[in-house]
Amino acid sequence: MRATLMYEAGDVRVETVPDSRIEEPTDALVRVTAACICGSDLHPYHSMTAENGSARMGHEFIGIVEDTGTAVTTLKKGDLVVAPFAISDGTCEYCREGLQTSCVHGSFWDTQPREGGQAEAVRVPFADGTLVKLPVDADSALIPSLLTLSDVLGTGYHAAVRGGVKPGSTVTVIGDGAVGLLAVLSAKRLGAEQIILMGRHQARTDLGREFGATDVVSERGDEGIQKVRDLTGGQGTRVVLEAVGHMPAYEQAYGIVRPGGTISRVGVPQYEAAPVGFGSLFGKNVTLTGGPAPTRAYIEELMPDILNGSIEPGKVFDTTTDLDGVPAGYKAMDERRNLKVLVTP
Amino acid sequence: MRATLMYEAGDVRVETVPDSRIEEPTDALVRVTAACICGSDLHPYHSMTAENGSARMGHEFIGIVEDTGTAVTTLKKGDLVVAPFAISDGTCEYCREGLQTSCVHGSFWDTQPREGGQAEAVRVPFADGTLVKLPVDADSALIPSLLTLSDVLGTGYHAAVRGGVKPGSTVTVIGDGAVGLLAVLSAKRLGAEQIILMGRHQARTDLGREFGATDVVSERGDEGIQKVRDLTGGQGTRVVLEAVGHMPAYEQAYGIVRPGGTISRVGVPQYEAAPVGFGSLFGKNVTLTGGPAPTRAYIEELMPDILNGSIEPGKVFDTTTDLDGVPAGYKAMDERRNLKVLVTP
Repeated sequence: MRATLMYEAGDVRVETVPDSRIEEPTDALVRVTAACICGSDLHPYHSMTAENGSARMGHEFIGIVEDTGTAVTTLKKGDLVVAPFAISDGTCEYCREGLQTSCVHGSFWDTQPREGGQAEAVRVPFADGTLVKLPVDADSALIPSLLTLSDVLGTGYHAAVRGGVKPGSTVTVIGDGAVGLLAVLSAKRLGAEQIILMGRHQARTDLGREFGATDVVSERGDEGIQKVRDLTGGQGTRVVLEAVGHMPAYEQAYGIVRPGGTISRVGVPQYEAAPVGFGSLFGKNVTLTGGPAPTRAYIEELMPDILNGSIEPGKVFDTTTDLDGVPAGYKAMDERRNLKVLVTP
Repeated sequence: MRATLMYEAGDVRVETVPDSRIEEPTDALVRVTAACICGSDLHPYHSMTAENGSARMGHEFIGIVEDTGTAVTTLKKGDLVVAPFAISDGTCEYCREGLQTSCVHGSFWDTQPREGGQAEAVRVPFADGTLVKLPVDADSALIPSLLTLSDVLGTGYHAAVRGGVKPGSTVTVIGDGAVGLLAVLSAKRLGAEQIILMGRHQARTDLGREFGATDVVSERGDEGIQKVRDLTGGQGTRVVLEAVGHMPAYEQAYGIVRPGGTISRVGVPQYEAAPVGFGSLFGKNVTLTGGPAPTRAYIEELMPDILNGSIEPGKVFDTTTDLDGVPAGYKAMDERRNLKVLVTP
């Protein structure tokens, strides 16, 4: 079969690899019908070194179950399924409380050495816990929106949920990537009154307005902070959703957040240490929360809104390619020529 | 009048200073009847440099109103009052929502150049907003417990409230100072089921057990983290209350907290940057919260428990001195010979 591998920063190739197959009784083998490239795939695309060998890429996919291990009970051959970006057993205490990213048997697709979603097929561990059956056909017009349940919609939603967005909230979203835009949509869905989107790419911020942003701030740094203050009576917003992961976004977040407010991060931090002392978080009683989104936890809640058309998160996809086009897709997303690339293997 | 001044690290003196007096219509002049030395006073006692001149000390006191400005409406001469460690106007949006430490006209006693609680008298700005009348006499046996409403009880309680402690919670408290011990009492009051106190000073941890600690861990660092894990089925506690403020306590906190849990800090951070990335907070979806406690917000809630004897936070005072004994009191607390020193000017 064919699959996407990254060898080092900037070097993505589609190659023939050994066919994925059932290995454990809890596995399912899924033939991928739709996958995509993630903003977080761009982090290794910038920084990966060659020394540890290549990595299989892709953690978002929809596909058709082709085979199941003997212990799989909820899925059968022919089912169309969506996979969250984290593998989870569905039964441990963390899975039961909706924190599947901390599943005691869990892992991330990005750490699987021989599997990935940007491929023709994937072996899915703990299939009963990980996969969710979709009530549509593989060629449904809803596929792009349903594919966002893998990661970007659930991640934006996690940001908003952890940030405590509720009816009447004032919210700033930092980042106009797919996650940032879907954080806007999520904040709107949870009833936010004011949603300030910080981004400078107009096609994206226009989509952000369509998703519910009430204001757009294209300035960054101190200038951006001042602009948000101007929009909020000098106080900043109670909630800041940080959907980037770089230090300038973090610094912007604590500059913008209102005293007593919450910064919710879902951009994978490209730093380990950051300001948290009296001058940044502590003095203002600011809460810092967030983490890798347990998107599995949100699928049942969000899917009906997609099926009935009340949200259309699939609008974040602005181009479609086949597997051969994946390396060019990385380049286009890296150069911000495309927002998010849909892949149909 | 006489007051306490710190000149630099280790140099505390009681000196004659100009009498405090009403300056603004919203002021009250309070004759101090009980004050104390705070664990946070030990931070400048370790690090203060002489270059910016001396500082007036003391941010916790009870006293008798001696005079009021023309705009003060809720207090009159002769009232016994308690002062929180933050000055607040009582009317701004932050005060109304219970975040008086972010009051738009507010400040901390520690930043007042010519006032402090370790003195014979204090000019209190925004007296109507700041002070709370006490329904007892100045020689009541309840004074030590009521004095903890200024800071250490409210601060321990803020830690527990922000940490989201609720019936059945598992909690670790880091630090066996007065705030840590009263964080134990607060966690107990909010219904925590397991309260692990990390501290190595037996007289203090014994008081912690009396306040509700179910377990005491005297080990620190990795050994302490392992001990807490052993007590919690390997997972850590859902809530960690950090009542120290030094980096090793922070590191211990993220080592101990259960995935999805909350670290609530009330020890004034003696650092600005700290780990918050994938390996510390983000990967485990850990929430970091806390800050300077708006103790004013908790006085009405906690005072009845003191008046009816159901809590006795004043037990944290293990010695009493007059003003002349204040420098020796700093030394005794610094050397951990005393837990907390009550001062009767």
